[in-house]
Amino acid sequence: MWYVNNFTEKLGISYPIIQAGMAGGVTTPELVAAVSNAGGLGTLGAGYMKANQVKEAIQQIKNLTDQPFAVNLFVPEKVELHAEEIEKANELLSPYREALQVDKPEVKAPNHISFKEQVEVIIEEKVDVCSFTFGLPSPAVINRLQAENIILIGTATTVNEARLVEKQGLDMVVMQGSEAGGHRGTFATDFSDAMIGTMSLVPQTVDHVKIPVIAAGGIMDGRGVLAALTLGAQAVQMGTCFVTAVESDAKPLHIDALLNSTEEETVVTSVISGKPARGIRNEFIEQMTPFEAVLPGYPILNSLTSPIRAEAAKQKRPEWIHLWSGQSPRLSQRIPAKAMIDQIIAKVNQLSISG
Amino acid sequence: MWYVNNFTEKLGISYPIIQAGMAGGVTTPELVAAVSNAGGLGTLGAGYMKANQVKEAIQQIKNLTDQPFAVNLFVPEKVELHAEEIEKANELLSPYREALQVDKPEVKAPNHISFKEQVEVIIEEKVDVCSFTFGLPSPAVINRLQAENIILIGTATTVNEARLVEKQGLDMVVMQGSEAGGHRGTFATDFSDAMIGTMSLVPQTVDHVKIPVIAAGGIMDGRGVLAALTLGAQAVQMGTCFVTAVESDAKPLHIDALLNSTEEETVVTSVISGKPARGIRNEFIEQMTPFEAVLPGYPILNSLTSPIRAEAAKQKRPEWIHLWSGQSPRLSQRIPAKAMIDQIIAKVNQLSISG
Repeated sequence: MWYVNNFTEKLGISYPIIQAGMAGGVTTPELVAAVSNAGGLGTLGAGYMKANQVKEAIQQIKNLTDQPFAVNLFVPEKVELHAEEIEKANELLSPYREALQVDKPEVKAPNHISFKEQVEVIIEEKVDVCSFTFGLPSPAVINRLQAENIILIGTATTVNEARLVEKQGLDMVVMQGSEAGGHRGTFATDFSDAMIGTMSLVPQTVDHVKIPVIAAGGIMDGRGVLAALTLGAQAVQMGTCFVTAVESDAKPLHIDALLNSTEEETVVTSVISGKPARGIRNEFIEQMTPFEAVLPGYPILNSLTSPIRAEAAKQKRPEWIHLWSGQSPRLSQRIPAKAMIDQIIAKVNQLSISG
Repeated sequence: MWYVNNFTEKLGISYPIIQAGMAGGVTTPELVAAVSNAGGLGTLGAGYMKANQVKEAIQQIKNLTDQPFAVNLFVPEKVELHAEEIEKANELLSPYREALQVDKPEVKAPNHISFKEQVEVIIEEKVDVCSFTFGLPSPAVINRLQAENIILIGTATTVNEARLVEKQGLDMVVMQGSEAGGHRGTFATDFSDAMIGTMSLVPQTVDHVKIPVIAAGGIMDGRGVLAALTLGAQAVQMGTCFVTAVESDAKPLHIDALLNSTEEETVVTSVISGKPARGIRNEFIEQMTPFEAVLPGYPILNSLTSPIRAEAAKQKRPEWIHLWSGQSPRLSQRIPAKAMIDQIIAKVNQLSISG
């Protein structure tokens, strides 16, 4: 059968479908467990979580499933704080804070130790799979995790980055096509040179690395899954389609936007977090884009805009929140994760047979 | 079999593979005929050709094949000449002209009558298929051609554009994903909102139009062809892979660049023709990009840079010519068109069976 391959056998799961580890509350323990119980690989998006929160969420997932699941972490980057840049950004953001009655946030140096603590939690909890975004974990971290038989997945956006992931010793690589929603995983080149469509990215990568390639970007249903496998991927990673899953904790405004948008409405912008990410265009993006070049980088800008976005969501102002989305929002459905996976499998089976 | 569908039956050809109608000399009668003789649909890229040249090329193709083939035309747009803008562009271009010893070109208003004459040639020669880029032909033109049983194919880059193509009465639509090389076919929206990856564009379009969808962008081999059909396309259109075909008349510098580039090296730029097009980045693009906003539009800029590019090619200066390419140049091969098609079919057969 089409779904029996190195990927599913190595992970001991039924279907080569990963639910992407979207940070920021989307990936509830309920969502992760529902995907894993349905035969896919659920992923806890733990990038923004403190170690104790990661531990708690993992334990909740374990209460809901005995199937393998993954945790996604952000590889920390060197961050420099520039007081003037932050002050300028805060000035630009003050009209939103005033309208929403949000206090000016204090910016602290991001605590890099938390990544190490997150990794320790992964080990303590014997998580099956750990995936990484925003670069390569150090050999020390890789060795620690692999010694515990934890499968490691990197994220890349070019063939060269995939080779670096392989050389660093990770077990698999997610290839993130330009269609993908949310943050770009680019780490070894200018992000604008790494906006490669999934149709181009996957076969070119498959030809140049030996580790399993996982396709991501634009895949929302059985057609996309089988197409990605046909291109040579061993599995797919799907994000946007799970944002609207019933078990997701995405903001209702975000879900509504996805269910009512078209492929022309997304844009890749750095004005929300300081790192390029694809989402549905709104007033905040339009108003801040002229200042994109002078805004601070990730994660500084993220911490400056985060309280604004949280309060805007509460006050039901979709024009000022982040609305991450890939380029296929027309294919969004508000259904349970299991129904999504069942539908995908049924479609792939149908297409495989009729092929 | 996978290759028997509405598309191949309607056209009376063996395989659902169109060789894109690349204007500017790539699509020699030999290339068009070789593709059609191999079971695909060759296309003469006639966008820049005068009616008598189109006629001559069609007759040459007919001497080489009795199989169906297509001619691609550019739908003319309203063009305004602004003397100051042209003068400014010519100033910016003067260093290249001086280095190459090229005369300053005279710019004449493009002769819109030639489109009508091209259409008359298509009718006189009873060409099987006529495809259009850069917008919608008028109802009068469509009626004239369809009265002669000529199959008409439009080009679109968004779902909305595909609907316009269908509503206008064309028979099929090429959906050009963001991966595609050469000119963007966008005609009803800002081009930057219409950079949709093939993986996203095809299934969303298939769900919203009834006419057959032809996938384009990033497709270079059997993997891409079967993936595109899996997404719901009835056929594929492939351009970049035929630029390096032995029968192509692309400049040797262009072919060398394709055979030696990676997915990170292409860029979408308007500085060559005045219309956004994807090609391999070179010095000309880098030097002219800062002036992109003040340069004249298509086809004015095209006529200003054309003599420079022609002479640069003669003097073997790849840094100053156009090097159109999609995002999959790593998959380029220097082989005859028939070998390309045979290889594609063999791969699709293998993948269909093993699926």
